[in-house]
Amino acid sequence: MPEEDNCIFCRIVTGDIPCHKLYEDDTTLAFMDINPANPGHALVIPKSHWPDVATIPAEAIGRVAATAKTIAEAVIAALAPDGLNLVQANGRGAAQSVPHLHIHVVPRQRDDGLKLNWGLTPGEPGEIAEWAERIRGELNKK
Amino acid sequence: MPEEDNCIFCRIVTGDIPCHKLYEDDTTLAFMDINPANPGHALVIPKSHWPDVATIPAEAIGRVAATAKTIAEAVIAALAPDGLNLVQANGRGAAQSVPHLHIHVVPRQRDDGLKLNWGLTPGEPGEIAEWAERIRGELNKK
Repeated sequence: MPEEDNCIFCRIVTGDIPCHKLYEDDTTLAFMDINPANPGHALVIPKSHWPDVATIPAEAIGRVAATAKTIAEAVIAALAPDGLNLVQANGRGAAQSVPHLHIHVVPRQRDDGLKLNWGLTPGEPGEIAEWAERIRGELNKK
Repeated sequence: MPEEDNCIFCRIVTGDIPCHKLYEDDTTLAFMDINPANPGHALVIPKSHWPDVATIPAEAIGRVAATAKTIAEAVIAALAPDGLNLVQANGRGAAQSVPHLHIHVVPRQRDDGLKLNWGLTPGEPGEIAEWAERIRGELNKK
């Protein structure tokens, strides 16, 4: 059985599972998260099944991000939050819950306790340079 | 004085402020965050100055997201984290620190304590439906 048959988000795309739909176009779909971090929390997904940021084509994630912008603007206009985060998770270390790429559109309030902010602590310059070197090494392989 | 003259990220684009550059193309730039949440934390920005998700054009945020994908893949290959988040903040309620749109590429470890995960607590169905109605109302104005 293809992976898509067991994917909650693919089944939302086909209409097999209902959702509070906000928007759709040829390649993307937006709907409400039923486990909201805050009032107005929405999700934007590609209609096609790609598990994560590594597997989705660049052009496709660009379209998901463009739809996330559209939804973010509407959420801001509708609910006037103090701020808003776009959050996208990959892998168990990031607690990705559904293995179909999705962008969370999360309205924020100053006192919401979400701790999506990690504070600003300067890193050790030599370490940062070393990470950069390793990342550039991978980019240069392409 | 135009807003860009005081913008740290615009000054990184021009080379006026140094950075650990990872990648650039016509419209986007990627470099290391000097206040890393975790080892390998990088930033992706548009070269043009837009403060946030509401002000950047859809096509431009799509290109920033596509570059974030490229960087995320390289970070995963270079540092083999347990997971990875893309995070984008808008406004004081989301603790946006620099008013030039940026996507954080944040490698994750299972025990990193970053609390970028908010858990899965079901929302009240009637409330979710009401938020959806208000957001759709804004989308329909476009």
